[in-house]
Amino acid sequence: MNGILITLEGPDGAGKTSVLKNILPELEKMKQEVVATREPGGVRIAEEIRQIILSTENREIDSKTELMLFAAARRLHMQEKMLPALREGKLVIVDRFIDSSVAYQGYGRGLGVEVVNWLNEFATDGLKPDLTLYFDIDTDLALARIMKNRSEEVNRLDLERAEMHRKVRQGYLEIVAKEPERFVKIDASQSLEKVATDALTAIKERFNSKF
Amino acid sequence: MNGILITLEGPDGAGKTSVLKNILPELEKMKQEVVATREPGGVRIAEEIRQIILSTENREIDSKTELMLFAAARRLHMQEKMLPALREGKLVIVDRFIDSSVAYQGYGRGLGVEVVNWLNEFATDGLKPDLTLYFDIDTDLALARIMKNRSEEVNRLDLERAEMHRKVRQGYLEIVAKEPERFVKIDASQSLEKVATDALTAIKERFNSKF
Repeated sequence: MNGILITLEGPDGAGKTSVLKNILPELEKMKQEVVATREPGGVRIAEEIRQIILSTENREIDSKTELMLFAAARRLHMQEKMLPALREGKLVIVDRFIDSSVAYQGYGRGLGVEVVNWLNEFATDGLKPDLTLYFDIDTDLALARIMKNRSEEVNRLDLERAEMHRKVRQGYLEIVAKEPERFVKIDASQSLEKVATDALTAIKERFNSKF
Repeated sequence: MNGILITLEGPDGAGKTSVLKNILPELEKMKQEVVATREPGGVRIAEEIRQIILSTENREIDSKTELMLFAAARRLHMQEKMLPALREGKLVIVDRFIDSSVAYQGYGRGLGVEVVNWLNEFATDGLKPDLTLYFDIDTDLALARIMKNRSEEVNRLDLERAEMHRKVRQGYLEIVAKEPERFVKIDASQSLEKVATDALTAIKERFNSKF
């Protein structure tokens, strides 16, 4: 495939999505056509699967079922949206991909890395990003950002979320350490502008010759 | 768990479902309370997943996605319906379970046994039936039974179906050979009455002391 696959990863509150919006116009000025997407990305059946995961509020669906459903939605999104664009030589940027399952289900929910890696490999036929930007942020700061737009007091669920958040970040740090050649770690505690600049620089440095 | 898990397996046209209807009244006369079910078994989210698989007419969903979705629906059905009944000491009879995925997706669709076993194990936490009745039938006879209620001529799709059917049966025969202690093979080419008698006899012989 002639295209380039870049994924954005990081715990909630790291600001990935805002950064992507911010750098997209710059990327679109480059030679290569850009497709920015996120699972389930408007792929009909993948959207339906996501609705199932969300609609239950996690009451009936446990981590294993959740992992299998995410993997199925991932495969559909990959086959219908990512692969066709990559085959056409485009630059595909995905907000969350395989590493999110490892961090959230593998570390956060405790299913273990091996199991999640197996299912990722199965679902994606081994497709790996050419570059992954990992937006790293301290858990307390990330939670503060998430809470900022909320008026309620901190409740039990939020405390559970903090514990989960810590595990997810720890997971990401271990994933990044294992594949240093694929990841660029970006300090997401900085201002949005600085984080966006770092992200854009990392992409340009890696693919300079290709643009 | 105090309950007993029996699964019914076999290619389409073997008559499993009719046999189950036929023997159920006899089973219900025995001491142990009986729950007869089949995936997705009225479990809401599992039904929704099944709708997704069926509604697409296999146009967008490939074998891998199908396998993951079936596995997710299997887990939900197992957790919400099978396990609670088994914990209450009931006799649970399921029309198709793990072996169907091995025969259909593993052999029929060519995903391979190892991959399907892995996902079955993951989805069911390793739950294995105490007894599996395998209803064996020659492919031509099974297809003739399936066609009997149809008026159209045999078309290309039917020929593909014959090829798939042959692979599925071959798969079942290999699965049965690998775990002779779990399976009882029943000649499903016989009359419904005879097949039902054989099935009932196999169950009584295996669990005589428990009833």
